[in-house]
Amino acid sequence: MVLLFSKEVNGMSEIRQNLISREWVIIATERAKRPDHFLKPSVKKTPASHVPDCPFCTGNEEKNTPGETYRHSDDNGWKVRVVPNRYPTLVSEGDRVRSVNGIYRTVSGVGIHEVIIEHPAHNLTIALMSQNEVADILRAYRSRYREIRKDPRIECIIIFKNHGEAAGASLEHPHSQLVATPIVPSQVRDRIQDAIHFLDNTGECVFCNMLRLELAAKERIVHESNHFVAFVPFAALSPFHLWLFPRRHTSSFDDISDQEIDDLALNLKTVLAKLYHGLGNPDFNYCIRSVPTDEHQSEYFHWYLAIIPKVIRTAGFELGSGIFVNTALPEASAKFLREVSPAGDDG
Amino acid sequence: MVLLFSKEVNGMSEIRQNLISREWVIIATERAKRPDHFLKPSVKKTPASHVPDCPFCTGNEEKNTPGETYRHSDDNGWKVRVVPNRYPTLVSEGDRVRSVNGIYRTVSGVGIHEVIIEHPAHNLTIALMSQNEVADILRAYRSRYREIRKDPRIECIIIFKNHGEAAGASLEHPHSQLVATPIVPSQVRDRIQDAIHFLDNTGECVFCNMLRLELAAKERIVHESNHFVAFVPFAALSPFHLWLFPRRHTSSFDDISDQEIDDLALNLKTVLAKLYHGLGNPDFNYCIRSVPTDEHQSEYFHWYLAIIPKVIRTAGFELGSGIFVNTALPEASAKFLREVSPAGDDG
Repeated sequence: MVLLFSKEVNGMSEIRQNLISREWVIIATERAKRPDHFLKPSVKKTPASHVPDCPFCTGNEEKNTPGETYRHSDDNGWKVRVVPNRYPTLVSEGDRVRSVNGIYRTVSGVGIHEVIIEHPAHNLTIALMSQNEVADILRAYRSRYREIRKDPRIECIIIFKNHGEAAGASLEHPHSQLVATPIVPSQVRDRIQDAIHFLDNTGECVFCNMLRLELAAKERIVHESNHFVAFVPFAALSPFHLWLFPRRHTSSFDDISDQEIDDLALNLKTVLAKLYHGLGNPDFNYCIRSVPTDEHQSEYFHWYLAIIPKVIRTAGFELGSGIFVNTALPEASAKFLREVSPAGDDG
Repeated sequence: MVLLFSKEVNGMSEIRQNLISREWVIIATERAKRPDHFLKPSVKKTPASHVPDCPFCTGNEEKNTPGETYRHSDDNGWKVRVVPNRYPTLVSEGDRVRSVNGIYRTVSGVGIHEVIIEHPAHNLTIALMSQNEVADILRAYRSRYREIRKDPRIECIIIFKNHGEAAGASLEHPHSQLVATPIVPSQVRDRIQDAIHFLDNTGECVFCNMLRLELAAKERIVHESNHFVAFVPFAALSPFHLWLFPRRHTSSFDDISDQEIDDLALNLKTVLAKLYHGLGNPDFNYCIRSVPTDEHQSEYFHWYLAIIPKVIRTAGFELGSGIFVNTALPEASAKFLREVSPAGDDG
């Protein structure tokens, strides 16, 4: 049993700051939890591999999900499809129009909102797919990113996944989403500003610097592969919060090579399988963060994938302060996940 | 029936920016919802007014909640108590020690974490209390704020409330919390920086400016009283998101006068009663934001109270972008709440 926090590790709680996001996190000793606290009581019942009224299952593609923008197939039919979201947060038609009237600032709600249907099977999840199947999903992401980046109205492309109800998934069929926005979020602007200062002050990309230090420190590393490193950030916002960094400095996800896609597929699948088996298929979000499309490549920004298991709930304190409370020590979260077999053959 | 969004109101979704927080919000037309969508199916069963094993109920104060720091009583016993949180996120003993080791930045986890027990009755909530009872709670907030501000280790004092399970409340008995931190959250630093720029550029506090414009526009106002104005922000992050601003420019909550406390008590009670009756006692958070304690009073910062009903869930997109999606038009949310009777005597 790994204690996620113990008095032996640290006599007093500690507040840590993440240099990349500038977010502060209280690592709460008094509320310390063991890993089994986060284990879901039982793995959900496995649904059928085909559900007739699921809009993403095979059979009624034209009727349920018209306007397909990407399809990868083999002799047995499609493997991955990308379709417009039927309830888009942004609409694809129209001009980007900014309006400023005193303190009232608006931009027209144009952009792209697509759904990546990850697999024909209703009951699969990345943790249980083959490496090739995961690589197919990542190639779909890359293809859509490259295409959508050409749209001059678009400033940022965010690829994300909601897995499970607590993470906001409204459909069970394995899928992820892409939203391309006509603005740069202020969160992204702030991070870029900080990253530029870091580069100016040190001559190094802050992400490359963090990766180098984490590889040397070892204690927060969860899984290393040829081209990617998965680790729990020093100032992880919540238990088992993970970052996957490419080793090669590059600012936009769509710059990923074929070889790197294969490597990321295995790394992502391994890490998600550790969560699946170690924590009983927890609900989670992941997102891929890239530099705004206008910049595309820069010395100071490094794309990465963040995974946030939904094992704790944020409340009024986080809302009111922007400070997070993590009830697990990041080093202990990493140790726990390092020791979970991704094949699930170990208690 | 008020449509919270309709094609008549606006043909295309709109992205709005809040000038104070710089947060962008997509007002999502395609996902538009009517107010009855947010109505909880049934009001929860009312618990008893006294629950023997509740740590905040009367009877075992010394055993359950030792170390009381504030008590307001009358002849019938206590009305409001403040006690240390038994599972504090920050501990009150110890020095504030900062440590910087390359990208690893820490501060020792010292601070104050207290619980304000709002009323002896287990089954009351501010929406249903008398104005005087709410004023008693606000006076407890002010007293603790004034006392804790003297601690030289403290930089920020956040007062907040979690109401209901979805809002993170772990105990049913009406209570709020105070956390005093030894750091200034980066979110607060950013807002201050922006507010200073606004003052430099316009000669006016950005909050005073917003209040003036909202009072002139009227359409987002929910409730006005002598000293406070409750409104739905132009770029509300979620349906029925509310801000209560003091009309008088002042930066810290503890500067509130006795007269203002009585007025805020009635305004807050009124607004929470509108939520209670209009939406079926939704879970919500509120928080009181003040300037960092070192500054205490400034020309550019204005304290305020924010109320965030938990009627929608955030997911991977919000995490990945920092952009929110609001499925209700702020003007329609405000209109709906204006029309709900705080006495609950109207369907």
